[in-house]
Amino acid sequence: MFSFFPIQGGIAVAKGFYCDGVSAGLKPNGEPDVAFIYSDSLCEVEAIFTQNKFCAAPILHYQEYDKNFKTNFVLINSKNANALTGDEGVANVKEILDEAKGKFPMIYNPIMSSTGVIGVQLPKTKIVESFLKFDLTKKDDAKAANAIMTTDRFSKTIAFEVVLEDKTSFKIGAMCKGAGMINPSLATMLCFIATDAEIPKSDMKDLLQNAAENTFNAISVDGDTSTNDTILLLSNGKSGAYNKEAFGFVLEKIMHKLATDIVRDGEGATKLVAFEVRGAKTSKEAQKVAKALSQSLLVKTALFGCDPNWGRIASTIGASGIECSPKTLEIYFDEVCVYQKGMIYFDGENEKKAAEVLKRESFRIICEIGKGTESYVAYGCDLGHEYVKINADYRS
Amino acid sequence: MFSFFPIQGGIAVAKGFYCDGVSAGLKPNGEPDVAFIYSDSLCEVEAIFTQNKFCAAPILHYQEYDKNFKTNFVLINSKNANALTGDEGVANVKEILDEAKGKFPMIYNPIMSSTGVIGVQLPKTKIVESFLKFDLTKKDDAKAANAIMTTDRFSKTIAFEVVLEDKTSFKIGAMCKGAGMINPSLATMLCFIATDAEIPKSDMKDLLQNAAENTFNAISVDGDTSTNDTILLLSNGKSGAYNKEAFGFVLEKIMHKLATDIVRDGEGATKLVAFEVRGAKTSKEAQKVAKALSQSLLVKTALFGCDPNWGRIASTIGASGIECSPKTLEIYFDEVCVYQKGMIYFDGENEKKAAEVLKRESFRIICEIGKGTESYVAYGCDLGHEYVKINADYRS
Repeated sequence: MFSFFPIQGGIAVAKGFYCDGVSAGLKPNGEPDVAFIYSDSLCEVEAIFTQNKFCAAPILHYQEYDKNFKTNFVLINSKNANALTGDEGVANVKEILDEAKGKFPMIYNPIMSSTGVIGVQLPKTKIVESFLKFDLTKKDDAKAANAIMTTDRFSKTIAFEVVLEDKTSFKIGAMCKGAGMINPSLATMLCFIATDAEIPKSDMKDLLQNAAENTFNAISVDGDTSTNDTILLLSNGKSGAYNKEAFGFVLEKIMHKLATDIVRDGEGATKLVAFEVRGAKTSKEAQKVAKALSQSLLVKTALFGCDPNWGRIASTIGASGIECSPKTLEIYFDEVCVYQKGMIYFDGENEKKAAEVLKRESFRIICEIGKGTESYVAYGCDLGHEYVKINADYRS
Repeated sequence: MFSFFPIQGGIAVAKGFYCDGVSAGLKPNGEPDVAFIYSDSLCEVEAIFTQNKFCAAPILHYQEYDKNFKTNFVLINSKNANALTGDEGVANVKEILDEAKGKFPMIYNPIMSSTGVIGVQLPKTKIVESFLKFDLTKKDDAKAANAIMTTDRFSKTIAFEVVLEDKTSFKIGAMCKGAGMINPSLATMLCFIATDAEIPKSDMKDLLQNAAENTFNAISVDGDTSTNDTILLLSNGKSGAYNKEAFGFVLEKIMHKLATDIVRDGEGATKLVAFEVRGAKTSKEAQKVAKALSQSLLVKTALFGCDPNWGRIASTIGASGIECSPKTLEIYFDEVCVYQKGMIYFDGENEKKAAEVLKRESFRIICEIGKGTESYVAYGCDLGHEYVKINADYRS
């Protein structure tokens, strides 16, 4: 038994955490483009990084630390991904972080995280000069969340307090950015989570990967995997409180909200769609078909056009390579059944009802495979003219 | 040694083959929508069908014939795919083909092929009534090719005569349709090839699959696999001539032209792009990355915007799951090198040159992986506003 409730404060809500966003002149008009997260005591840290083979320099730098290293400082910049930048890219990360350590001697094993254009070296001097504006006693979570945005239309931040049965409590705060898996070469999904829960290091990997399975691993805007994707969990233990089940539950809630926010903010997206696949033979097969649906161009464009084109959905399931048969398949748009085991419910009346569902801001497409008991939900969005505009014309 | 040259006559160019297209009233304004291919002697036949698990009723009907069956008649309709139509769909194929046999007693083991909307039963009566307009002594290849079109902007037909070393000769004619892997629920890629070469049945499967490997299997418009995809090879042997190597060579030429025509005619496409992957460790890996590139939304939209965004190409390679390293990778737009083993050639001058390449109607993107000697070329197109328009608004 435990209770939890939303609170203000974002990424710096937990005891001993501080943050801010400042302008290094990477974005125009003095908008914040460099952020830090600082903890006044050392943190256990765990991360999930992109599967992309060309992972960015800050990720390569992170991987040079010992497996069980502790840290108290994360530096984040937008507008430049520092990816495909070779040895010079990694050297630049070290140089920048050394400058930070020189200026703030309490910084220990600092981490860097970047998002933006691929294949251009970091503007080192600008970033280092921005350290003059850092105040490590600040807790400006809104500015930090703004600094890490690229093509995001809104900033993404969330925090909870969790009260355990024995009345001890801890806090978790988080922020993230992302609006396409890769934006106009302005890359990436980044997510930072900071807590004062006293999590044993040995629990962290499990907790993070379990929560990612049905959240960040379940979303798709355009099916592309960036060079910089990062989820970072920091825990300084300052609350003295912890319960694995409670922490895992709330962590998944947080990551689910942030992940679906990314889809809602998908480039050119007008609706959030949950592709719920049930009755698959294995959970792998359920996942395979749910992801195929969320990534199908023909499904995405039909959703944009509010066209309840169940034939495209059936065809995508059939092409996904899983075990299935038209004689056991059922398809629903929310509560409206359009196809059931060979029966087509698509007279004018039902088609109109299905089209009404598609006008909702958020709805489910439920596909019952009828071959087993496994299920998976993937989250996707529609694809409209705005996506083409954003991604074809980014230099102009 | 053999020679070959293009000739007029399309699908009915070979000895003993006849064809026509007539209007059954499925398309508006009396446009042809039903076609036949007839041979006055029995044909060996071989086919490649879609991998989609929900393959359409005419394919299920074909698969009921014995493995080595012979045929002399193919009936094709557009506007209705007869897919996801259950047992009734297959019964309809039989009924329609029985009517054809009743009217033309020389028809033997007829085949049907359909393309169009999914999940609607065939308009049987209209199709059967159109048989009144059939004249099995006609060779109107243009009308036949028109009848099988759906959203195609142009009809696709080709024919060659092949002269062997011993001066014997044979002819091959072909037609195909397709403009998206699945169009607005108007499905599918269909390709028909008819020859009077005397091919042993035992060679046909090999010949067809080898030719498909680098042609129809290498193209992508939107990455979706239809329920109706069909490549059909008919051989009546009437020329008495045959040479496996010569036939295979010209068959691949024919299928390559038709396959790239489909990409050129891709919905909303403005350019044909060859993604040439070299230096991969295995041919499977070369194929994997070439196809990933041809299907990446971010690459496709960059191509539409004439943006030589090599970062997206590199990122897609890195995300494709193959063995690769930024230190051995090279990327070229035709003759312009933009990235070479960690060196970025992307000053203003070179960027301008690369952007010029992207304005060409057709060009290559060459990716040298630097890990082996295997290569593969996949063909794709750009994705622009027109694609969204066609696929979002098909009912309006």
